[in-house]
Amino acid sequence: MRILGLDPGIATLGFGVIDVNQGNLPELLDVGVIQTPKKTPMGDRLKIIYEDMHVVLTQWQPQLVGMEKLFFYRMGNLISVAQARGVILLTLSQHGIAPEEFSPPQIKQALTGYGNADKSDVHGAVMRELNLSAPIKPDDASDALAIALTCWMFNPM
Amino acid sequence: MRILGLDPGIATLGFGVIDVNQGNLPELLDVGVIQTPKKTPMGDRLKIIYEDMHVVLTQWQPQLVGMEKLFFYRMGNLISVAQARGVILLTLSQHGIAPEEFSPPQIKQALTGYGNADKSDVHGAVMRELNLSAPIKPDDASDALAIALTCWMFNPM
Repeated sequence: MRILGLDPGIATLGFGVIDVNQGNLPELLDVGVIQTPKKTPMGDRLKIIYEDMHVVLTQWQPQLVGMEKLFFYRMGNLISVAQARGVILLTLSQHGIAPEEFSPPQIKQALTGYGNADKSDVHGAVMRELNLSAPIKPDDASDALAIALTCWMFNPM
Repeated sequence: MRILGLDPGIATLGFGVIDVNQGNLPELLDVGVIQTPKKTPMGDRLKIIYEDMHVVLTQWQPQLVGMEKLFFYRMGNLISVAQARGVILLTLSQHGIAPEEFSPPQIKQALTGYGNADKSDVHGAVMRELNLSAPIKPDDASDALAIALTCWMFNPM
């Protein structure tokens, strides 16, 4: 089962792809960020997200997609992130995918057993689950893998 | 000069197209709404907006686009409208257009000379400016024409 995790944002959108086979450990296939330059007009930043999302979706053809729920944001950020989410949801729909959404406490609970865990605990859990020798950088990429792993835990095979 | 006015929304997105030639009165070319069914998944609603926006932009090839600024909304609405706006900004960028944004008071001021005017005053002004014998329905379509007319007033030829 191929799972894509997404940590939506307008400046930096984290994505992580894992594969899980029956009885096997999750395997890391790809992880990275889609970045858009701050001084670029909003529409053009959204176009970068649109095009790069299609590249990721076409390359990896995920069967499940997990996405972070819109949670606490400052107002200005909220609108930008919601606009980016709109474009992400559009590209998923164009690939026939309805994502599952998880709140930060759900993700923390799934990975560490504790809904109020620190970011560093979650990054450590991502390393352990995927048997990595070094933490994933930047944080948005590691967060995306945490979401992919959460999506797997909510959809056991 | 071809101007498209947009009143963004997730359930109903109003659009209005006017043509203004040097020294001439503005002429109504097209007006309507893009609607998405409430019970459809968000991504699929955004896909309808994406596809219909491309139809409008391809048909009318506007030189200017005016759009209502995000203003007072209830929180749940704000996220949906911002997601729709993200997709609208994307389609405009794909057509090489950076929209101009106007707040409701700016639109009211431009059309009626009074920033705190009633909705009905604005609809009446739209009728007068475009020499229409009946008001445009629904309100979202009339609002979109008000935005197109505002965009013209801010960009005199």
